[in-house]
Amino acid sequence: MTEPTDELRRVDAYWRAANYLSVGQIYLLDNPLLREPLRPEHIKPRLLGHWGTTPGLNFVYAHLNRTIRERDLDAMTVIGPGHGGPAMLANTWLEGSYSEAYREVPRNEEGMRTLFRQFSFPGGVPSHVAPEVPGSIHEGGELGYSLAHAYGAAFDNPGLLVACVVGDGEAETGPLATSWHANKFLNPATDGAVLPILHLNGYKIANPTVLARIPDEELDALLRGYGYAPRYVTGSDPTRMHAEMATALDEVLTDIRRIQHEARDGGEATRPVWPMIVLRSPKGWTGPSFVDGLPVEGTWRAHQVPLASVRDNPAHLAALADWLHSYRPEELFDEAGHPVPDVLATIPRGDRRMGANPHANGGLLLEPLRLPDFTAFAIEPAKPGASTSEPTRILGQYLREVVRENTGSRNFRLFGPDETASNRLDAVYEATGKQWTAEVLPVDEHLARDGRVVEVLSEHLCQGWLEGYLLTGRHGMFSCYEAFIHIVDSMFNQHAKWLKSSKRLPWRRPVASLNYLLTSHVWRQDHNGFSHQDPGFIDHVMNKKAEIIRVYLPPDTNTLLSVADHCLRSRDYVNVIVAGKNKSPDWLPMPQAVLHATRGAGIWEWAGTEDGGPPDVVLACAGDMPTLEVMAATAILREEVPGLRTRVVNVVDLMRLQPPSEHPHGMPDPEFDALFTTDRPVIFAYHGYPWLIHRLTYRRTNHENFHVRGYKEEGTTTTPFDMRVLNDLDRFRLVIDVLDRVPGVGVTTASLRQRMTDQRARHRSYIRAHGEDLPEVRDWAWPY
Amino acid sequence: MTEPTDELRRVDAYWRAANYLSVGQIYLLDNPLLREPLRPEHIKPRLLGHWGTTPGLNFVYAHLNRTIRERDLDAMTVIGPGHGGPAMLANTWLEGSYSEAYREVPRNEEGMRTLFRQFSFPGGVPSHVAPEVPGSIHEGGELGYSLAHAYGAAFDNPGLLVACVVGDGEAETGPLATSWHANKFLNPATDGAVLPILHLNGYKIANPTVLARIPDEELDALLRGYGYAPRYVTGSDPTRMHAEMATALDEVLTDIRRIQHEARDGGEATRPVWPMIVLRSPKGWTGPSFVDGLPVEGTWRAHQVPLASVRDNPAHLAALADWLHSYRPEELFDEAGHPVPDVLATIPRGDRRMGANPHANGGLLLEPLRLPDFTAFAIEPAKPGASTSEPTRILGQYLREVVRENTGSRNFRLFGPDETASNRLDAVYEATGKQWTAEVLPVDEHLARDGRVVEVLSEHLCQGWLEGYLLTGRHGMFSCYEAFIHIVDSMFNQHAKWLKSSKRLPWRRPVASLNYLLTSHVWRQDHNGFSHQDPGFIDHVMNKKAEIIRVYLPPDTNTLLSVADHCLRSRDYVNVIVAGKNKSPDWLPMPQAVLHATRGAGIWEWAGTEDGGPPDVVLACAGDMPTLEVMAATAILREEVPGLRTRVVNVVDLMRLQPPSEHPHGMPDPEFDALFTTDRPVIFAYHGYPWLIHRLTYRRTNHENFHVRGYKEEGTTTTPFDMRVLNDLDRFRLVIDVLDRVPGVGVTTASLRQRMTDQRARHRSYIRAHGEDLPEVRDWAWPY
Repeated sequence: MTEPTDELRRVDAYWRAANYLSVGQIYLLDNPLLREPLRPEHIKPRLLGHWGTTPGLNFVYAHLNRTIRERDLDAMTVIGPGHGGPAMLANTWLEGSYSEAYREVPRNEEGMRTLFRQFSFPGGVPSHVAPEVPGSIHEGGELGYSLAHAYGAAFDNPGLLVACVVGDGEAETGPLATSWHANKFLNPATDGAVLPILHLNGYKIANPTVLARIPDEELDALLRGYGYAPRYVTGSDPTRMHAEMATALDEVLTDIRRIQHEARDGGEATRPVWPMIVLRSPKGWTGPSFVDGLPVEGTWRAHQVPLASVRDNPAHLAALADWLHSYRPEELFDEAGHPVPDVLATIPRGDRRMGANPHANGGLLLEPLRLPDFTAFAIEPAKPGASTSEPTRILGQYLREVVRENTGSRNFRLFGPDETASNRLDAVYEATGKQWTAEVLPVDEHLARDGRVVEVLSEHLCQGWLEGYLLTGRHGMFSCYEAFIHIVDSMFNQHAKWLKSSKRLPWRRPVASLNYLLTSHVWRQDHNGFSHQDPGFIDHVMNKKAEIIRVYLPPDTNTLLSVADHCLRSRDYVNVIVAGKNKSPDWLPMPQAVLHATRGAGIWEWAGTEDGGPPDVVLACAGDMPTLEVMAATAILREEVPGLRTRVVNVVDLMRLQPPSEHPHGMPDPEFDALFTTDRPVIFAYHGYPWLIHRLTYRRTNHENFHVRGYKEEGTTTTPFDMRVLNDLDRFRLVIDVLDRVPGVGVTTASLRQRMTDQRARHRSYIRAHGEDLPEVRDWAWPY
Repeated sequence: MTEPTDELRRVDAYWRAANYLSVGQIYLLDNPLLREPLRPEHIKPRLLGHWGTTPGLNFVYAHLNRTIRERDLDAMTVIGPGHGGPAMLANTWLEGSYSEAYREVPRNEEGMRTLFRQFSFPGGVPSHVAPEVPGSIHEGGELGYSLAHAYGAAFDNPGLLVACVVGDGEAETGPLATSWHANKFLNPATDGAVLPILHLNGYKIANPTVLARIPDEELDALLRGYGYAPRYVTGSDPTRMHAEMATALDEVLTDIRRIQHEARDGGEATRPVWPMIVLRSPKGWTGPSFVDGLPVEGTWRAHQVPLASVRDNPAHLAALADWLHSYRPEELFDEAGHPVPDVLATIPRGDRRMGANPHANGGLLLEPLRLPDFTAFAIEPAKPGASTSEPTRILGQYLREVVRENTGSRNFRLFGPDETASNRLDAVYEATGKQWTAEVLPVDEHLARDGRVVEVLSEHLCQGWLEGYLLTGRHGMFSCYEAFIHIVDSMFNQHAKWLKSSKRLPWRRPVASLNYLLTSHVWRQDHNGFSHQDPGFIDHVMNKKAEIIRVYLPPDTNTLLSVADHCLRSRDYVNVIVAGKNKSPDWLPMPQAVLHATRGAGIWEWAGTEDGGPPDVVLACAGDMPTLEVMAATAILREEVPGLRTRVVNVVDLMRLQPPSEHPHGMPDPEFDALFTTDRPVIFAYHGYPWLIHRLTYRRTNHENFHVRGYKEEGTTTTPFDMRVLNDLDRFRLVIDVLDRVPGVGVTTASLRQRMTDQRARHRSYIRAHGEDLPEVRDWAWPY
């Protein structure tokens, strides 16, 4: 073994400094530079954090710094083992980017004390690589999404290198396991590079990891099968590891440059085999080897806090002091607590520092989308309900223009799990293709090496890519079958938490909202049935902070266009749009649609039979299918109960139903009462699970009179109208609901109730005999 | 190419019959045997279904039949491409198992007509391999879970072969991508075998698949990297493909037998490399090659219904007739519509038929667990709250005995994502180990080649394995961090839908419930913080059918034991148990705990200050942490407002809060009113998101007076008590809530309100100064 170069000596100094600062964060309340002997009162009362992964992360960061400096790279990291919060905090503090975001934590002894104390401390900073950490677009508490985020960040950033550390625990998750295949969707000419660094430290919380316990040749085959050329850095001796890591990084970066060069200059059209690094180092590397006689370094016992009783156990205290001194802090920090020149020497400058890279604070780079005039796509029904259109098909035409208008900026993408065409957005293919760098056959359609549509049969990947794309300052939309968006429930949770936390950080700039278009929805799953019927994502998102969440249920095409335009302009939200793809009536001319979407809820005067006085009943609806059935019920009532004064209220923006105290969009009580009255029966036909409407309205004066119909988990492969009958959302049932609830009307209309019941039976028996709906339902149009 | 053997001629006949029946299901209303020329009125009005994957599934089934018969195998299938419903319906009808389950669909012409007509038809059968299909434990509508289900079925079934068809679309999902690694958890000595058959038909809905478009050597490396020895069957010529598939199956089954033999007889202790098959055949194989001039067979256009306009377009009708005739049905079915002897010859007999295999109707094989007396683990507090215990730690002791008592039956497993020890259930390791067949090092603990605990860092795998295990007639529990159970929201949806549908099928026997133990919950995430805080799974499960869903929030250890015992005895439910792992007070002696758990909700008379008359206020609680805070608030009120009559209601079984019309456990109104009064303020401290309590109680008389506190998405890495203060669930806030709501009390207690506010501030500032909770909170005990 040769002696280390001066450069690697400096990298080692930097690494020791980062390790020292990491241990300090986990343990020390005070005495940050060990100027006095370590005493129990210097130790935090509750020892919290994850040491195990941290030294490896510091090692990677140190080496990336060296290469960034040497090659003037535009690079950022995604840290899969987000538990290793101390690492990223230590590194950003060392490089100065932390103190720029948090002036109260300067790069000196006082700042170091604060850095240590605040970690996992009440009122301080979280223990993970949370939004509070500069340079991060990935929290990593949940595990599984790092590599997808990294690829999302690399899309359309040809100059960017995204180094992604994948923990071997995380590598066992499903989302991570499929994320390796993202290289089939990366274009070396127009996208940046992702450098996966699989960190095999061998253990999870309490178990070995799968990838650390398969034979080397299996691991190698697996990674090559995923389409990478792995390079291994294995060991525990720091000097040797520094040399190996430096060589490895130099080689893979040269490879990446070659790949990009060939693709960009030579027009190389085959999918490259991208390099990656496998770093096999001990868990808790450089930490205590044994504690209380049991092996710790290199085992799962190093996962959290290796020395657990430092305050009470003098042996533990002494071991901690030895451990801290082993990094020789006196060589790393000067009298003022500032890193010495040797430590600073490997750190890149300015925005090249990974904690200061603007891509990791995407709002800094965000340019508004150029949005076409959505009213140009307006449907113009001669009268309400006189025509039908397929809402998402028209939306597809609008999105096609969004793609075209922003071609130059390359900052808009549409993600979907192989459903863009099924969801009838395929007009976008007139403007762009589907990004695909794997093999193409002559029979294929719309595949492109540079496309704005990204499709893969993994909702996890779609979500992860889009999150990475948005957090690095771009725009996008995720179109998905409504039922299967639950696959990413937990990813949504994490993103919503990220947004909530980010909004409270002045230095994080707003990013484009995450827009979901949920279609092929519960009421139209003709080819599939029960497994594809679940409108509960709305309920799920409602549990997150109101300041983040928006839910829209446009009743027709024009309203959908207006809503989509609004969502694409918004920032820092999660917008959920639920809209149908099947032909459905056009209710509102565009000017009214815009007004209606803007108000979020309103009376459709033309549909009701009010006469200036209070109505006898309110028929409310939210969602395209419920709107259709309410309109049909209204028409029946108009004919059959001529004196009945009905009011039709349509709700687009579901958040309007809540009180303003619960949601910024919430309607004040007087406005709510003006729509829904204070004492009249309200029959509410809702797209999803009915109890959500109760949850939103239970504080309202008239809530007691709300009767909600919606999906109640009845379904199979059947006709659209049969689905509504199965769930009591059909027009006949709604008429019966009215008769049951408007005092006095029921008595005079006993025969109508019976006829409605008979109609339900007639339809069901026709459907069961003929396998399709009666034309009078299929082709129904608002008759007035 | 040699001529096919007679046997393979018969397999081909069987295959043609299955293909014919599949096409018939998608298209035909009548004329099932084409006894007359095909006319538009024979065609279904709505053509629904998925042809593309179907012929490949039929091919696999036909060949499995041959080998089952030849080797007398105990085999079942899991069909990942569940969209291929027509295939499984065709095969089970051909083999007779379908008609045994559905006598109204006999194996003759009339039955064939019914089989065709009912498919994807209102009142008929769903288009997927749904619960309605004999021989299935997997619906496959959502994609991603087939291989996990297959391994779950194989665990502890050493004589069983589970052939699992993985579609190349499904293979892109995260859960499937990590499921390949399940072979590191399969013990060849004591478990059965899984034979993955990766079906590369090249396309999804509208795109090529990733695995079909990477070079052969990459695919081979990938599968070898996953630990399999792949064998390829590639082509489209039926005769050649039959020969190749027969040879491949014979070889892999011989390999499997050898592996099992070595492990069972020789005690071979290394992880075997299991064989698998890659079947590369055209999508829509044997269907129309071109339609309207565009290629269909072998492309994505074959995904659903290749000929879409058969009723209206005479050319399509003629093409359909040609297609159907191409299978030569006259050679396959006799005059009565019964399969001819050559077709029947390859079909196994009796329970060896895959549609009749009892493992696929697990309730048939289900043996009740032998359950230890849980009261033996009772905590005996001298008085309520006088002692503390860690609920899940005691539960772990009980589960240890469950493991021991059922060692012989080998029908109980505990699944977890590397959290069994973290969740403090580690007493189970006194009785068993963690199943692990990858490499073991001397430093490892509790790993075993035959263990009842199965841990992998993938909630998807845990859930999928458990589902497969339960549906094949065994028992289990899934312990998980509460926040991360959302990762399987969508899998839960599908399982709940499966149970709901199964319950309506008399031939499907009840299976053991799916038991979730959610711990390391929102209120105690000391090492982690915000990303680990989400109690919303309860909200999510509540959207499914009430007949399936049970949710328990035991307030202490004894109650948890009673609840767990109850859940392990139950059938066909999803039981969600939320319980803490940290030390918390023991409130109820065991006899009361049993009574309380059985009642599900009740007044804790000893905790309140009622005097026989109506209380002034009801303090209700559900969950361990809310119970503690309510008890502390009650104690404060007892001292500070001596005349105040408080009632404490604790809720274990959340479903009790609903009306009986909504849930079988629902309390009748009089009982609810007796607990919660009809007019007194109710301060309800709830474990999760507060609005759920409103959703459950909005129909109750006294709902207007309910004031609910719970988690409102505020959190970070901080102390347990600070978490409660952040979310307004702390005792001081609850006292203020009482003062705010009990008429008259507030006036006389202005100083108390102020003191409570001061206390909150005092605690917060102590916490922020010292990093831990005040001892008076940490060590609080019920003082009466």
